Amino acid sequence: MANAGTGTGLQLRSTIKKDGTLEISLVDVATPEPKPEEVIVRVEASPINPSDQGLLFGGADMSAAKTAGTADRPVVTAPVSPTVLKAMAGRLDQSLPVGNEGAGVVVQAGASPAAQALMGKTVAILGGSMYTQYRCIKAVQCLVLPPGTTPAEGASCFVNPLTALGMVATMRAEGHKALVHSAAASNLGQMLNKICIKDKVDLVNIVRKPEQVDVLKRIGASYVCDSSAPTFMDDLTDALAATGATVAFDAIGGGTLAGQILTAMEAAANRTAKEYSRYGSTVHKQVYIYGGLDRGPTSFNRTFGMAWGIGGWLLTPFLQKIGFEAAQKLRERVAAEIKTTFASTYTKEISLAEALKLEEIAVYGKLATGAKYLINPNKGTR
Amino acid sequence: MANAGTGTGLQLRSTIKKDGTLEISLVDVATPEPKPEEVIVRVEASPINPSDQGLLFGGADMSAAKTAGTADRPVVTAPVSPTVLKAMAGRLDQSLPVGNEGAGVVVQAGASPAAQALMGKTVAILGGSMYTQYRCIKAVQCLVLPPGTTPAEGASCFVNPLTALGMVATMRAEGHKALVHSAAASNLGQMLNKICIKDKVDLVNIVRKPEQVDVLKRIGASYVCDSSAPTFMDDLTDALAATGATVAFDAIGGGTLAGQILTAMEAAANRTAKEYSRYGSTVHKQVYIYGGLDRGPTSFNRTFGMAWGIGGWLLTPFLQKIGFEAAQKLRERVAAEIKTTFASTYTKEISLAEALKLEEIAVYGKLATGAKYLINPNKGTR
Repeated sequence: MANAGTGTGLQLRSTIKKDGTLEISLVDVATPEPKPEEVIVRVEASPINPSDQGLLFGGADMSAAKTAGTADRPVVTAPVSPTVLKAMAGRLDQSLPVGNEGAGVVVQAGASPAAQALMGKTVAILGGSMYTQYRCIKAVQCLVLPPGTTPAEGASCFVNPLTALGMVATMRAEGHKALVHSAAASNLGQMLNKICIKDKVDLVNIVRKPEQVDVLKRIGASYVCDSSAPTFMDDLTDALAATGATVAFDAIGGGTLAGQILTAMEAAANRTAKEYSRYGSTVHKQVYIYGGLDRGPTSFNRTFGMAWGIGGWLLTPFLQKIGFEAAQKLRERVAAEIKTTFASTYTKEISLAEALKLEEIAVYGKLATGAKYLINPNKGTR
Repeated sequence: MANAGTGTGLQLRSTIKKDGTLEISLVDVATPEPKPEEVIVRVEASPINPSDQGLLFGGADMSAAKTAGTADRPVVTAPVSPTVLKAMAGRLDQSLPVGNEGAGVVVQAGASPAAQALMGKTVAILGGSMYTQYRCIKAVQCLVLPPGTTPAEGASCFVNPLTALGMVATMRAEGHKALVHSAAASNLGQMLNKICIKDKVDLVNIVRKPEQVDVLKRIGASYVCDSSAPTFMDDLTDALAATGATVAFDAIGGGTLAGQILTAMEAAANRTAKEYSRYGSTVHKQVYIYGGLDRGPTSFNRTFGMAWGIGGWLLTPFLQKIGFEAAQKLRERVAAEIKTTFASTYTKEISLAEALKLEEIAVYGKLATGAKYLINPNKGTR
């Protein structure tokens, strides 16, 4: 049974053509014979994260997407504007595989003991090219899930859990005592709440709708501020003063939120100021933008003194900075708590072909909180 | 002659009243008897820096300023908008002295040898309250100017020179190999060019008018980009690619320039990129905003990957970070090169009373490049 199911497998590909057309399609790829240190994983679950959609859609106008091909081999095309096309110069005419992470069962293993030890195990992988039926990967890159864990349960072991853990670790490393998170009702945001409750770290949650306040309150969040409320700036300042949070992780990116957070942090700092300082408070206030749910421009008024920073934050450089050993500890914590702290929920499980249906793209492409899709590349194949 | 000229002296004061009125006036203050470690300096030159104007005008609408009082004791008033008034809560109804730096002659000294050694010397001071005729200060805070240096020549020993030196030191400390400076034709910008030419550091100058290109080219600048030119983004990208500059110091603050600099840095980095990276180049790109010549909002499009930062930069925290010894070395370099690298030029020398004339405020309040004023609190008194 060492070769069960292998041979060739379907893989999702995204190509931006020089003429300004995005093409998403499925191709048959040969499953390679694993080298001694490698295994073949039958991928059964891979989430569609916001971080996957940049590569998948390449900034194309998906509202103008068209579909062609057959039900088994659909082909989606969509126009890419000249401006976006310029930014995509590095990937033109390349057929790129997609899917950062996922989980599945090891169905074939190379000769090495490390690879052989994984035969039949359910493992999680962060390696790219996961929207594929069979993924060849080094054994060392496989995170073995605890017995009784399904691929669907282990599909999101990396991007959201390590990002959430990375935020808390960054907060500590840079000397802050509490943190702020925006788009806080997301899967990631709920996970961050569970971590912070467990680790006794104060977290200020910013959500964009009243109903999301309840979602977070139900899982035990102490501080939830609704940016659509007229009292938002006062609510946020109160929460920042209560927690002393001086670092924020912002998934929105565009608009005025990053600046509003800094302004509220400054107001909170000045509540305890003893004398007037013309350059504002001396405490460093930091906002890290790690997502772009709002793709519009970021705008702020610099009404928060001179001790501030706004910058990009990304998981991979963070993991490189802390090193393999420290990162491995984080990964092991995720595996151990995959059904509790790091549990993810999905709206729908779809096949690779279903991922190319325009009506599904219209739903998962919106990046709406609470509408998260899981691709099962082997759905219906067994 | 130990008490020559002392007794009382005029001092400029700025007050924002609770009712929303800024009042700038002159008051008579008693010159204290210096303690053993102190000296009395007869201030003869103190520049009006952009950093002084925040305290002086307190965000009031100076276009609506009125004048009262006498020619010798004028009183200027101007309205402060409710929004600005809120930000000024920490200074309401306080009569604040103004003037960060200046130079003058030591006319009285305390009993300590350090103080006595300064009698008759021309010294420069960074200590605040310099728009005053007689300034009592610790001897250790006086920077003795080389023989033959006038107070006017030594008036700007600190803010601009240390800021320019601080930019180069920050560039080095954070691992960048060249730097960018905006509003580069300013006194500070010209100084930075002289430092960079002398120290063989590549500097990319950004100016806002064609004629400012010539100002900098004449003093030997290699890279000058005019943001009013249609080719600005291409010119800037070329200069960044040629120099490898990945840190910028921006005096403008508002508008789109900070984001444009990051975008051009990213484009320059991608010219040498070997493969497509969906998160952009991995080189960290940083813009420090150290001024606010444009007081409007800062806006950017995040078209520069994820490895970027924008933040405030201020001289005092920089000096605190490097420590007294390192800062003292910088100060000594400034004194030694005060007539060359760190020479400043002024449009006009005015008295304290003249500084309160509306027609003068209309000129120096504009913060225009090449219109820098020097206050001589003892003008006409000798």
